[in-house]
Amino acid sequence: MLFNKLCVIGVGLIGGSVAKAARARNLCAAIVGLGREEDRENLAEAQSLGVIDDYYFDAASALHGADLIVIAAPVGSVEAIFAALQEHWSASAVYTDVGSTKGNIVAAAQKVFGRVPRNFVPGHPIAGAEKSGVGAAQADLFQNKRFILTPLADTDSAAVQAVTRFWEALGASVSAMDIAHHDAVLAATSHLPHILAYALVDLLGRKDEQVEIFRYAAGGFKDFTRIASSDPAMWRDICIANRAEIAPLLLQLCDELQTVAALMERGDSQQLLEIFSYAKNARQRFLDQFEP
Amino acid sequence: MLFNKLCVIGVGLIGGSVAKAARARNLCAAIVGLGREEDRENLAEAQSLGVIDDYYFDAASALHGADLIVIAAPVGSVEAIFAALQEHWSASAVYTDVGSTKGNIVAAAQKVFGRVPRNFVPGHPIAGAEKSGVGAAQADLFQNKRFILTPLADTDSAAVQAVTRFWEALGASVSAMDIAHHDAVLAATSHLPHILAYALVDLLGRKDEQVEIFRYAAGGFKDFTRIASSDPAMWRDICIANRAEIAPLLLQLCDELQTVAALMERGDSQQLLEIFSYAKNARQRFLDQFEP
Repeated sequence: MLFNKLCVIGVGLIGGSVAKAARARNLCAAIVGLGREEDRENLAEAQSLGVIDDYYFDAASALHGADLIVIAAPVGSVEAIFAALQEHWSASAVYTDVGSTKGNIVAAAQKVFGRVPRNFVPGHPIAGAEKSGVGAAQADLFQNKRFILTPLADTDSAAVQAVTRFWEALGASVSAMDIAHHDAVLAATSHLPHILAYALVDLLGRKDEQVEIFRYAAGGFKDFTRIASSDPAMWRDICIANRAEIAPLLLQLCDELQTVAALMERGDSQQLLEIFSYAKNARQRFLDQFEP
Repeated sequence: MLFNKLCVIGVGLIGGSVAKAARARNLCAAIVGLGREEDRENLAEAQSLGVIDDYYFDAASALHGADLIVIAAPVGSVEAIFAALQEHWSASAVYTDVGSTKGNIVAAAQKVFGRVPRNFVPGHPIAGAEKSGVGAAQADLFQNKRFILTPLADTDSAAVQAVTRFWEALGASVSAMDIAHHDAVLAATSHLPHILAYALVDLLGRKDEQVEIFRYAAGGFKDFTRIASSDPAMWRDICIANRAEIAPLLLQLCDELQTVAALMERGDSQQLLEIFSYAKNARQRFLDQFEP
């Protein structure tokens, strides 16, 4: 047992998978969920599935005796969660989160607490699925995936070690990264593709309402747009939280698309071939280092 | 046996799959390949794999006695193929193609022959893979996929029936469509996503050369960019052939991306949520009618 009582705040796809994985690996004696009244149905489902032992709508009860607290709520709600946790904050517990953006999480902690608590370790598992809710949770979601820690200079090293051991026990490969670097890299490899998929399906969905086009789409389109089935509220929050990194990338991609359109219009076959060939080779470079 | 001798022009992923599928279903007594000198290695592989019985570099030998000719070469090379076929064109054979664009194929036929031969039936199987070459060919590639015919008003109806029966025997569901409609629909559901995937991976590949970013990309990125591993020369040809439909879509998508960037910058959560929710619902509409 690494911990006595795990409290998961937000028992959705990720929070539920953390709980299921911790249970399957026998890492915590007790696992409870904390949520809002409107999450009652999802929390009841989590309990009936055996993902959590119990659930609460008040922080005092949920946190009582908890020595590991994992915040797994949309990144836009974390400031309110910190505010709700503040009066119950325990110096002997370890706190962490799973947010896809780290700059805004740390800013929220600073705002609420005046300074980021030393026993809060910001983190991000590079794993997910387009499904939402505890029903989609999987005990092996983090197996062979990366988990990125973004500790601050004064984050408690025992807390960092505890979070590292926990995620390694869940099957993840843990590495540390600077907050700004994390937010820049994830904007490129995760946030930008998600927004692109949403924008494309939004554009084509409106066309499909006029003229049937989806009927003639193939398997490639299904894969390409899979991430457009992700939770819209979660991605709205990520967009707002990391807009300083994402918005410039969107405009760079626009420039590139305009360049491609111009090459097509003037029939520049050679330049098009070079761009497509470069991309194919670059993806191969990605595949060669992708695990699993 | 539907045909005596099938001649496949271009024995790559699609042409090879046509040959393999025809062989597996015993649709033709003989199957031969026609290619260029630089395709020798691929054609030899096709023969050694048993995909074709024989291969030729001259049209006269390949077409001798052939009653079904399937052109499966990049769409930019079809005009030259028509020119090579012209003096051997048989009124009693049936000709078809598998090009992803239909307007330029018909224009090429008009240019070479003066008018589109009545026994040429333009067609397009809505199936593919990001792999190239005969080694990636699959006998079941067209099973439960769509095949779109775009016959002209004066295309011979017996030829249309023969091509329909052939593709139905390969497992496809055959439907007819107007050429302009085909090119508009495929520009949206297939050509645009491919260019988008190439453009994104091109942009990120160049960033990855400066700062390691692919290392932190997850499974969602792998799926999203799968089509960027497609054959660059084939897609260059499609871009040029269907630029009148694709280029305006690229610019519409740019507008949409700029709108999203502006919404992010002014923190318009509500509007972002609406776009993402609309897209998620639209993709569900696509999934509900996708087979399989």
